[in-house]
Amino acid sequence: MPPTELEIIRKIEKLAGRIRRSWVQLGIGDDAAVVQAPAGHQILLTTDQVIEKTHFTKETHPPRALGHKILARGLSDIAAMGGQPLCCLLSLQMPGWATGAWLSAFLSGLLRLSKNSDAPLVGGDVARGRLLAAVITVVGSAPADEILTRGGARPGDIVYVSGRLGGSAAGLEKLLRRGTGNPVPRDRAVRRHLWPEPRLSLGRQLRKLGATAAMDLSDGLAMDLARLTKASGAGAEIDAARIPLFPGASLKQALHGGEEYELLFTLPPGLPPPASFEKIPLTPIGLIRRKPGVELRSASGMQKLKPRGFQHFDR
Amino acid sequence: MPPTELEIIRKIEKLAGRIRRSWVQLGIGDDAAVVQAPAGHQILLTTDQVIEKTHFTKETHPPRALGHKILARGLSDIAAMGGQPLCCLLSLQMPGWATGAWLSAFLSGLLRLSKNSDAPLVGGDVARGRLLAAVITVVGSAPADEILTRGGARPGDIVYVSGRLGGSAAGLEKLLRRGTGNPVPRDRAVRRHLWPEPRLSLGRQLRKLGATAAMDLSDGLAMDLARLTKASGAGAEIDAARIPLFPGASLKQALHGGEEYELLFTLPPGLPPPASFEKIPLTPIGLIRRKPGVELRSASGMQKLKPRGFQHFDR
Repeated sequence: MPPTELEIIRKIEKLAGRIRRSWVQLGIGDDAAVVQAPAGHQILLTTDQVIEKTHFTKETHPPRALGHKILARGLSDIAAMGGQPLCCLLSLQMPGWATGAWLSAFLSGLLRLSKNSDAPLVGGDVARGRLLAAVITVVGSAPADEILTRGGARPGDIVYVSGRLGGSAAGLEKLLRRGTGNPVPRDRAVRRHLWPEPRLSLGRQLRKLGATAAMDLSDGLAMDLARLTKASGAGAEIDAARIPLFPGASLKQALHGGEEYELLFTLPPGLPPPASFEKIPLTPIGLIRRKPGVELRSASGMQKLKPRGFQHFDR
Repeated sequence: MPPTELEIIRKIEKLAGRIRRSWVQLGIGDDAAVVQAPAGHQILLTTDQVIEKTHFTKETHPPRALGHKILARGLSDIAAMGGQPLCCLLSLQMPGWATGAWLSAFLSGLLRLSKNSDAPLVGGDVARGRLLAAVITVVGSAPADEILTRGGARPGDIVYVSGRLGGSAAGLEKLLRRGTGNPVPRDRAVRRHLWPEPRLSLGRQLRKLGATAAMDLSDGLAMDLARLTKASGAGAEIDAARIPLFPGASLKQALHGGEEYELLFTLPPGLPPPASFEKIPLTPIGLIRRKPGVELRSASGMQKLKPRGFQHFDR
């Protein structure tokens, strides 16, 4: 017989452990959690979900990686705003098969990242569902009036990306190619897809460096740069030869592959960032311009870069 | 062809309208929303979900009522802490059938309550799912060190409930009894089940009155009082004859029926509240005692009240 809702909540509470973070006044167990933001900070809020057969399958995604990834996605949004995490909340929809070892592994992946990134699990909800789904809300904070948004890029600003792109898409392809039941291949691109690292300290650093705009790359460079420029009331041109490729990834994967969780950001031309930060390369790939739209310069000349990326409802 | 994810997000943005609340710095559209809590306040966080075939069916629950109810559940948690709402975030898992008129009606119910309760929708996520599911996160705030919890009841305190109990269970029974395809019966109990009212101003009033503990009744009086007393390291005895019954509801429905969203609270004996607040009756039903467990006094004597209530995983 599957465990009751209460038994599952107790298991989560036990695995989450006692929260020892000065800013958490009340964690799991009351009607609401209570947290205290640092003085002078505003609250950052983001929510994200992974759904079986939409975002992952039991076969391709080990539960530990999935638990890590859902929290990493939320933390990546906090990073993109230049913020620091305060806590997270988790809602689970659970089929019977997932309530035992699968849940333990999922939680261990999530809670490890939660501890390492100072984002304790303070609440959530558990209910039965036919397919597994997990929704995370991540709460963060940043000094008022210093928060990075997508809307601040100005014509003449330089466009940068952190890290190397296309690895997540290349890794997913490898995962899908292996036969059902085969072990997860040991491969850098696969690892990149399964275990993305939110760029939290880089995000805070960009705030201090005077970045004019920032966002995280979740739906592909082409689509996300279109969003950033639109929010800024501007356009951009980028240079194909400058886009840093993940080893083994194609330009197409770098332009249109989702789930990178690197940061896309802009800085005025007079404020170049260091070439890398905590070993993550920071690469200039183009320029913000007044004319709307995004164009790609390559050996065959300039062409419009269509905002085609990863969209669930289009599949 | 069903709309794309982006088209759905645009529809939600359009229906949500421009947010004109001084404390919301940034709503839907960036990597994270930005809100500012009142000075001296701590942040309250709660998350809740409704899942097709677990919590509702297309046949029994009209979409407008469902949109209202999911937000009401989250707001009720904020009320129980004595807080005020700041904003909400919504994650949707959508089958194709739900993306048109159903979604519009669902959102109209949610957004009406959102506007009336000062909890603007500032973010969320949309993805395809085989069954409909909605997860809401409600963010609120309350003055530091004045927040109501479940853990503060002391032996000798009086136990109160707001409103009249059992109506939600009675209404659900009527909804389930009507044949498929028949209109929703016009009935007070049905209305009570479909359109619960979060007791936000009452919750803040209880804080000012010096309530020692509070929680909202979501899983039934028997189970929720067991939780409150356990969190307070105490027990309670309540009087069956004193429990205020919703017209037409049975004592069993009042004790074990879920989804009431009334407040259960305790006050020291020297601090009686008014008999009603904003026309909601406040009824003393028993006493906190040192001895753990909850007992019910009725015509047939004292008996243990088992914490049996509404639990998804037990069904």
